[in-house]
Amino acid sequence: MPNPGVGKRAAIATLSLLLLVGPAVGQQSDPLPSWNEGAAKRAIVDFVQATTAQGSPTFVAPAERVATFDQDGTLWVEHPMYSQVVYCLERVPAVVKAKPELANVEPFKTVLSGNREAIAKLPVKDLEKILAATLTGMSVEAFQAEVTKWLETARDPRWKRPYTELTYQPMREVLKYLRENGYKTYIVTGGGQDFVRVYSEKTYGIPPEQVVGTAGGTKYGYDKTGKPVLTKEPKLLLNDNNAGKPEGIHLMIGRRPYAAFGNSPGDQQMLEYTAAGDGTRLAMLVLHDDAKREYAYGPAQGLPATKVGAFTEKLYDDAKKKGWTIISMKNDWKRVFAFE
Amino acid sequence: MPNPGVGKRAAIATLSLLLLVGPAVGQQSDPLPSWNEGAAKRAIVDFVQATTAQGSPTFVAPAERVATFDQDGTLWVEHPMYSQVVYCLERVPAVVKAKPELANVEPFKTVLSGNREAIAKLPVKDLEKILAATLTGMSVEAFQAEVTKWLETARDPRWKRPYTELTYQPMREVLKYLRENGYKTYIVTGGGQDFVRVYSEKTYGIPPEQVVGTAGGTKYGYDKTGKPVLTKEPKLLLNDNNAGKPEGIHLMIGRRPYAAFGNSPGDQQMLEYTAAGDGTRLAMLVLHDDAKREYAYGPAQGLPATKVGAFTEKLYDDAKKKGWTIISMKNDWKRVFAFE
Repeated sequence: MPNPGVGKRAAIATLSLLLLVGPAVGQQSDPLPSWNEGAAKRAIVDFVQATTAQGSPTFVAPAERVATFDQDGTLWVEHPMYSQVVYCLERVPAVVKAKPELANVEPFKTVLSGNREAIAKLPVKDLEKILAATLTGMSVEAFQAEVTKWLETARDPRWKRPYTELTYQPMREVLKYLRENGYKTYIVTGGGQDFVRVYSEKTYGIPPEQVVGTAGGTKYGYDKTGKPVLTKEPKLLLNDNNAGKPEGIHLMIGRRPYAAFGNSPGDQQMLEYTAAGDGTRLAMLVLHDDAKREYAYGPAQGLPATKVGAFTEKLYDDAKKKGWTIISMKNDWKRVFAFE
Repeated sequence: MPNPGVGKRAAIATLSLLLLVGPAVGQQSDPLPSWNEGAAKRAIVDFVQATTAQGSPTFVAPAERVATFDQDGTLWVEHPMYSQVVYCLERVPAVVKAKPELANVEPFKTVLSGNREAIAKLPVKDLEKILAATLTGMSVEAFQAEVTKWLETARDPRWKRPYTELTYQPMREVLKYLRENGYKTYIVTGGGQDFVRVYSEKTYGIPPEQVVGTAGGTKYGYDKTGKPVLTKEPKLLLNDNNAGKPEGIHLMIGRRPYAAFGNSPGDQQMLEYTAAGDGTRLAMLVLHDDAKREYAYGPAQGLPATKVGAFTEKLYDDAKKKGWTIISMKNDWKRVFAFE
């Protein structure tokens, strides 16, 4: 009959073993199951190991682990048109209802006509008028409520699904994998900061305070009952595109990222800034070369030209020269969407 | 002789008990040992319990737990002069050394003279010239290095200690207590965002991305070797004082705080905005009424008037009317500094 002391020790040893084995087994499972084996997947896994393994010469302290992601075309579909532009155009009837005098004024008249060709030809100045009319002039809470309501009912014309379901499953896995390894994940988007913040937490697990985007000012005041109100103003504080991306990262985060993901020339400076830091850094670009499962557009690599998120030949050449990794949607991704 | 199975179960029970008892005992110890019992301490503890206890009708989801703190006069000493202004004045000789033509130009001439009375009388326009010359025109990394170096050697004239040691121990306990209860703690300061970010993590455990402050723009460019550089520009993006505090909170955080702490009229709108939210909110103001251990200044409550962080009679009356809690340094704090 065994000594009860031995039994006690054995029980503790078994418990310890259970505690130790659990996580080790978990870590061995593939963190990126929607990725095909290849250079892109390897670059991500190698980066995480190089920056998080204890004893690695390029170990990064947890507090400094920052990864930034462009949104449109990098985390979700941007074709045929950025979702936020669709939102603004679809808000026009409500704006005109509140201010009927706009019905016969351009560009509102053209938008109300529903003539897609004419809408597509509106000059930038007119588009800015539409953005100002639909994105400013209301309280931040009223805006959040309007966007929330729109997201519930709006559907992408091709997949007939809410826009928030058109996120790329492989990139969701990268977000999760980085977070599980202590990285703080940020969206750094040319889109509106307030717009993206409405759904970022639910859609990507990225809280509003980790969304850096094109930002307008607000004005603090009081409503009729004396309650404080922040009103969205038509005053641009940060144009978070091109050079505005590293500038926005400095303003809102104050740290240089260790990893950055983009898909167009608007992301080039963010990737340059990231890659120029010390130690191991990761810079990746999504190439839309999968017309069947999503869209194909370049003009890099002979892909069809586009005005929305164009991956230029120059960006492609620069990326190759600088050792940035290009993600081919067609070849690197086993699946594009979670609903496939 | 006992059954070994009983021994095993007993061992597991003992282990479980040890695991359970540890934290429970810890939670019963006083989280705010430098606070005297009274309304201020009670307000903080009641707020934490009301917003974090499971089942509380005013429970706040962990993701939404945001607390904002003014810095100068709320977390550390602001008298006789804001530390950042001291930094700027002490940087002038180095600026003039790099640009000798400034030696005979005002306001640099006056600052170099060392005549304190004359320096104190410099008009705002001249002060702005000094801020621009000492806070802009360099890369963000060069600025960080300069501030780091200054903080190591600069000493407060009264306590002969580094400025970063002049933090209020009771407020450090509040930061820690809130963080232990799932709150994200932010500094929201009229001081320079880039300046405060240099020491916020080491001094308060608040990382750079949780510092909201008066912010200038940066300009993205390249140095002679082609390396990307962000240069600090003399262009004001956010004046994080008064109405600028809630505006800055919306820009940088995107959530309304549940708790806010300040000490002067520059914090009033932040407290109003915080207190106007649903559920239980906490709004507190530090009153400097302890000439012996720190400084006494108002002019509220007949305290001596000051130009630096004046707690006005109007703010005092408003606070009383709105049910905000005033912290008397003299009566509510057992000790002011950790080194006492």
